[in-house]
Amino acid sequence: MDEVGAGARRAATAMAAASTAAKNEALLALARRLRAAGPALAAANARDLQAATGLDAPLRDRLKLDAKTLATVAEGCEQIAAMPDPVGEISGVKRRPSGIAVGQMRVPLGVFGMIYESRPNVTIEAASLAIKSGNACILRGGSEAIHSNLALAQLVADALEEAGLPRAAVQLIATTDRAAVGLLISRPEFVDVIIPRGGKSLIERISREARVPVIKHLDGNCHNYVDAEVDLELAVRVVDNAKTNKYSPCNATESLLVHAVQAAAFLPRIGAIFAAKGVEMRGCPRTLALLGPLQGARLAAATEADWGEEYLAPIISIKVVDSLDEAIRHINRHGSHHTDAILTTNHPNAMRFLREVDSASVMVNASTRFADGFEYGLGAEIGISTDKFHARGPVGLEGLTSMKWVVLGQGELRS
Amino acid sequence: MDEVGAGARRAATAMAAASTAAKNEALLALARRLRAAGPALAAANARDLQAATGLDAPLRDRLKLDAKTLATVAEGCEQIAAMPDPVGEISGVKRRPSGIAVGQMRVPLGVFGMIYESRPNVTIEAASLAIKSGNACILRGGSEAIHSNLALAQLVADALEEAGLPRAAVQLIATTDRAAVGLLISRPEFVDVIIPRGGKSLIERISREARVPVIKHLDGNCHNYVDAEVDLELAVRVVDNAKTNKYSPCNATESLLVHAVQAAAFLPRIGAIFAAKGVEMRGCPRTLALLGPLQGARLAAATEADWGEEYLAPIISIKVVDSLDEAIRHINRHGSHHTDAILTTNHPNAMRFLREVDSASVMVNASTRFADGFEYGLGAEIGISTDKFHARGPVGLEGLTSMKWVVLGQGELRS
Repeated sequence: MDEVGAGARRAATAMAAASTAAKNEALLALARRLRAAGPALAAANARDLQAATGLDAPLRDRLKLDAKTLATVAEGCEQIAAMPDPVGEISGVKRRPSGIAVGQMRVPLGVFGMIYESRPNVTIEAASLAIKSGNACILRGGSEAIHSNLALAQLVADALEEAGLPRAAVQLIATTDRAAVGLLISRPEFVDVIIPRGGKSLIERISREARVPVIKHLDGNCHNYVDAEVDLELAVRVVDNAKTNKYSPCNATESLLVHAVQAAAFLPRIGAIFAAKGVEMRGCPRTLALLGPLQGARLAAATEADWGEEYLAPIISIKVVDSLDEAIRHINRHGSHHTDAILTTNHPNAMRFLREVDSASVMVNASTRFADGFEYGLGAEIGISTDKFHARGPVGLEGLTSMKWVVLGQGELRS
Repeated sequence: MDEVGAGARRAATAMAAASTAAKNEALLALARRLRAAGPALAAANARDLQAATGLDAPLRDRLKLDAKTLATVAEGCEQIAAMPDPVGEISGVKRRPSGIAVGQMRVPLGVFGMIYESRPNVTIEAASLAIKSGNACILRGGSEAIHSNLALAQLVADALEEAGLPRAAVQLIATTDRAAVGLLISRPEFVDVIIPRGGKSLIERISREARVPVIKHLDGNCHNYVDAEVDLELAVRVVDNAKTNKYSPCNATESLLVHAVQAAAFLPRIGAIFAAKGVEMRGCPRTLALLGPLQGARLAAATEADWGEEYLAPIISIKVVDSLDEAIRHINRHGSHHTDAILTTNHPNAMRFLREVDSASVMVNASTRFADGFEYGLGAEIGISTDKFHARGPVGLEGLTSMKWVVLGQGELRS
């Protein structure tokens, strides 16, 4: 690990100074190599799949590196190559009374570590974001994907070399030894930030034990609040999409709050849709009174625990509230600070919701499912942060940089 | 501590939603109360000074809250009131192909904790930055200043109440029990970031033990590099100022690198100034050969340890280098990533230095002594960060905020 860390530090210096042209050349070379490497990658992937016969079907699916997956990640590399280089941007330059001009320059963070499970395409996503943002990275994928990841890392190193950049800019830890994780998260001299992606228990353990900063994503308990003044048609469409478009992503809605004056009009309509789609509704007493008559609805009384639950399943908790204030209080107390939306036609209420709901993404009249790096125009995301320090929400290239101060003088002295 | 923490969280919610007018009213009320409270504060301060008879003179001096200190901190509050409110700023709003408009809104971090030593005016600086940035804070000053700090915290709470803001927005831990520090740095549910200010050992201990993010400042081993192409007059003036303007601040220069082609012209001139001011010069062999003939100069051979030393004293290390590359490598290896300056007339060299020197502040033709929140126009600084994550260099109001995503839709759905 000392050797990997020292190599990453040296590579980071070269990457920070690398030209945009060289970084883009590496990304395009990587895309080309991914498209050409089909058979070799298939063999490596087959070894992982063979060893994974014990895994259940969805996990095996995530492990699979087929032609379609490879085309998608190759295209991702090309998209990142086409994006503007975030490094070197100078902003906010102002002349000060002393005569110096002061501004800020965007620079890479240095070395990031990434710990992730099963999906080998994450190896390429992380590598391509590292290259474009001028960082080095140390990757630690899951043991179940080790052969696929090693083959992919080889392509990355070759592409870097082809562009005249250091092979060590992207290093994959070749061992599946768990002790490597402990080293990766405890050496600030080698690693500037750790990005874990995987199950909640992995992320909680890393956050607890890390001695370097962590960009982490815990729960996604996302809310929709239907306000007293609302376009009911629009609200029904958006809430339906936010809940039922897909149940497993972290930006799927898990809880619905409805202002009392709209409850009788809104709940039976959305309830009928949820009932038709087999979504279980766990409601407060007022909700149950309104939905009780609904044919074929799966209804249950919500417990206190339901308000804090991330179901990732066809279940939604529903509560009738008496005011915007109650909705905001409820979300800030029970939510996970991920993504929350208000459905309203009232401008002051929209603005209060945006300002006072303490979440990484706050939305007006849009589906929470939009909380995503691609949808936000970041090109790609290295992760989603539910913390407030450094970066919130989807983290793209800019989240892998920081701003240093630049001072341009003509011999000014401090008095 | 649980009570203090829960109170801070509640207050943070109110502060985040507070109007700019109310926050400014609190700051102006605080300035007024500071000016009016002279006698009461003097009595509290006298108790601390009485108990501090064991301290040496400089420490007792820093503890003193005289009329001049109070006038300065009151003026600081008024200056912060006059600054623009960072909270609520919305930037970068762009319409996406899906139809949604996506941008970012600047919001407070929540609750910051501050741990500091002796100088009671830090209590007011922290309180005023917390108020303007819409955060709550928990302050833990040194035991030697406890009576002064309690009296000041009382004024802050009264000023907050006068403006209709929660008294708990700024809380001072009344106990001098060291266990309180341990709690303050280990409860992410109460504290979003810890800012320690004090000696290096305090800061290292807190960084090691903290379970919440830390904005920290370690060494300030600042460099001046005199390039091959340079205005010698200007370079002599700036290097003199950077080293001798004041020896104790972290932005004072500790190490001087000179390109070989300028060494014979530059070193005897700056050496004569240093000799006259009693600055000891620890040089490489080439430096010593050039400075040997100098009358009255205190010369010594630099050891490897000298290149990494933060003297905070009339001592400077000096090395002759053969290229800009060698200078950049030396600074990135031995420096502390605080502030480093190049003296040059060559534009490409200036740009390479700015980009490749991995420090929080990089300067061209200006004194490193300018690395300071006031000089940079931040109004005030809560601290200086030598880390890259979240904030680098002087940290002002913006460093106490983060950006959340706002999405404005008209009923868009994710497909």
